[in-house]
Amino acid sequence: MSDLLLQEVDGEIVRLTLNDPGTLNALSDEMLAALGGALERIAVSEAGVVVLRAEGRAFCAGHHLAQMQAMRQAPDGGAAAFGDLFDRCAAVMRAIRELPQPVIAQVHGLATAAGCQLVATCDMAVASDEARFGVNGVDIGLFCSTPMVALSRNVGRKRAFEMLATGRFLSASEAEEAGLVNRVVHADHLADDVDNLARTVASKLPAAVRIGKGAFHAQAERPVEEAYALAREAMVQNLADADTAEGIQAFLEKRPPGWTRG
Amino acid sequence: MSDLLLQEVDGEIVRLTLNDPGTLNALSDEMLAALGGALERIAVSEAGVVVLRAEGRAFCAGHHLAQMQAMRQAPDGGAAAFGDLFDRCAAVMRAIRELPQPVIAQVHGLATAAGCQLVATCDMAVASDEARFGVNGVDIGLFCSTPMVALSRNVGRKRAFEMLATGRFLSASEAEEAGLVNRVVHADHLADDVDNLARTVASKLPAAVRIGKGAFHAQAERPVEEAYALAREAMVQNLADADTAEGIQAFLEKRPPGWTRG
Amino acid sequence: MSDLLLQEVDGEIVRLTLNDPGTLNALSDEMLAALGGALERIAVSEAGVVVLRAEGRAFCAGHHLAQMQAMRQAPDGGAAAFGDLFDRCAAVMRAIRELPQPVIAQVHGLATAAGCQLVATCDMAVASDEARFGVNGVDIGLFCSTPMVALSRNVGRKRAFEMLATGRFLSASEAEEAGLVNRVVHADHLADDVDNLARTVASKLPAAVRIGKGAFHAQAERPVEEAYALAREAMVQNLADADTAEGIQAFLEKRPPGWTRG
Repeated sequence: MSDLLLQEVDGEIVRLTLNDPGTLNALSDEMLAALGGALERIAVSEAGVVVLRAEGRAFCAGHHLAQMQAMRQAPDGGAAAFGDLFDRCAAVMRAIRELPQPVIAQVHGLATAAGCQLVATCDMAVASDEARFGVNGVDIGLFCSTPMVALSRNVGRKRAFEMLATGRFLSASEAEEAGLVNRVVHADHLADDVDNLARTVASKLPAAVRIGKGAFHAQAERPVEEAYALAREAMVQNLADADTAEGIQAFLEKRPPGWTRG
Repeated sequence: MSDLLLQEVDGEIVRLTLNDPGTLNALSDEMLAALGGALERIAVSEAGVVVLRAEGRAFCAGHHLAQMQAMRQAPDGGAAAFGDLFDRCAAVMRAIRELPQPVIAQVHGLATAAGCQLVATCDMAVASDEARFGVNGVDIGLFCSTPMVALSRNVGRKRAFEMLATGRFLSASEAEEAGLVNRVVHADHLADDVDNLARTVASKLPAAVRIGKGAFHAQAERPVEEAYALAREAMVQNLADADTAEGIQAFLEKRPPGWTRG
Repeated sequence: MSDLLLQEVDGEIVRLTLNDPGTLNALSDEMLAALGGALERIAVSEAGVVVLRAEGRAFCAGHHLAQMQAMRQAPDGGAAAFGDLFDRCAAVMRAIRELPQPVIAQVHGLATAAGCQLVATCDMAVASDEARFGVNGVDIGLFCSTPMVALSRNVGRKRAFEMLATGRFLSASEAEEAGLVNRVVHADHLADDVDNLARTVASKLPAAVRIGKGAFHAQAERPVEEAYALAREAMVQNLADADTAEGIQAFLEKRPPGWTRG
């Protein structure tokens, strides 16, 4: 792993730590590459759950603006490079959704622009009570159009539009109320709370969680009948797992399951 | 009606009662057949509204796991039977959505897995303050993929995912806040509150409610312009009803409508 | 402008005032035409933001029922005229969504039926604490099918269905909690609060806001990968603006941007 992105394996939990505090953990070319590579490796690993957290006073402040300005030197004024940048960024967001393992954002400090998009993209998120969330690119003349794709799939339309068009930040408790994070805890308890959540997810049958996460995102934006057809296949596949058969049998016999955890 | 599913007709209100408390009102083959048959008959009846409630200490605890385990004896390990089961279950959920009459879930006790899906599928739901809601199949190795289709169309993504991946239950008040139920009332007032809601719906012009319910579900997941095209047709159809003409005229003349209630 | 709809230009803010208090600002043929015409002119103007407000004791009580009843005199009982009416009404709603400038609803008093749809359609809404919201056409036999298209894209399914099928009104605070309005303020502060919000939006780079608003509505109901493809194009377009280049550079240099505000 690069120093930009630290990786710690703790049993079935993998912790990825954005470690570029000098840029408020900007999603630089290097950080996007590091995240993409890490997710690719985790996808084929035995990990059960991923925690995404950050060093320094911000979770993530979005794209690396100095790198973006340098792209303007190209003959086309940067248009091709900008398009490529947003493709690479969207690929990282897709990799989080398509990762077999659930991803939990552990959010402290600022989560702005593409940093807020990261939070919205993760499957679950826990925020420190001092965290703040914004898609405030409009303040410097760049509407947060790509972050809004993820944001508007977590947060109601009126509130999402106001955040985007005014640059207004949400407090942690507003973010919870809006559906952007699962809950808010005192800063001193953030790591412990996320750890408990990660351990709970990691205690489940991995095959069930993987099948379920895939089905969750696959069905989310389909018409209800298509969604049921997808979910039906996920159930049949899940039921074919020997550990699932054992899990159900153990429940019927009121005993703990003897799972291989394969 | 089978004893598994009691049916009471009270004027324009039909009350269906899941009556298999020994299985926590599991959606067994027999219960699914009874529900499907009842909904088919109600669809062509003069009923104005349906209340779905339950006997015993749970509303509904989901599928009948012993019946499912028995399906594994087939040469294919149950794959075909499981697929068929989820098709029959999805058909009951579709029958609720497509029923001309609104369906109100009157929820006490546990509503878990496909039981939580039933609540999410009904048009409205009122919960007793002691009710609890879960999609906790993951605890026994079976991710609630089919329940999540209905759940994730009521509840925000972060919260739905957490319920599915951790098995965590929502209290009644959390379910209200999340959008899974319309409101929470004291257990002693549950039946009365649902009765008032049902009577209110039954007091409306049946043709208007039927046209409107159909349009509600038809437009819900269409792009906005298609949704408006569908809704336009519903309005034109509704306006062609003689009782609607009378309803509007009566409003303009500040008198009660002389509805035939046909 | 007709007297039915007042227009005031205050710098970059345009205020449109529904001014037919005798009909509770009904969306009559004349009002729909006036609104459509005003939006068409604003779309090609230099305005930065639009405030939609109303005179009298209601914001808007929906369609003009007497005009609708008169349409029944046609040989087809009004079917063609009703269809045409809902097309014209949907065109006004589309014009609000497609207007380059954000539209803020300033809501006092009643917002019912198509009046509630107007609020749901605006990009943002602020309500007076005495405002009330309903889609209560069902009370006179006409289910609010067209209003529900906009309503159900702001408000969760269970709550939207209850409003539609029972005619129940939401208080201002319920409307805020449901996501129908951004916030509630004391009636005495409504105009000032909306003014602050409008000035905030108008202070942003107009090109960024226009590109962003277009992308917001374009991506809202697309599958996530299509949404990202649209948002990517919006970002590239936004970044090609010289003022955006200056906005980012100024941020990097910790100085205010020298925008032309073109």
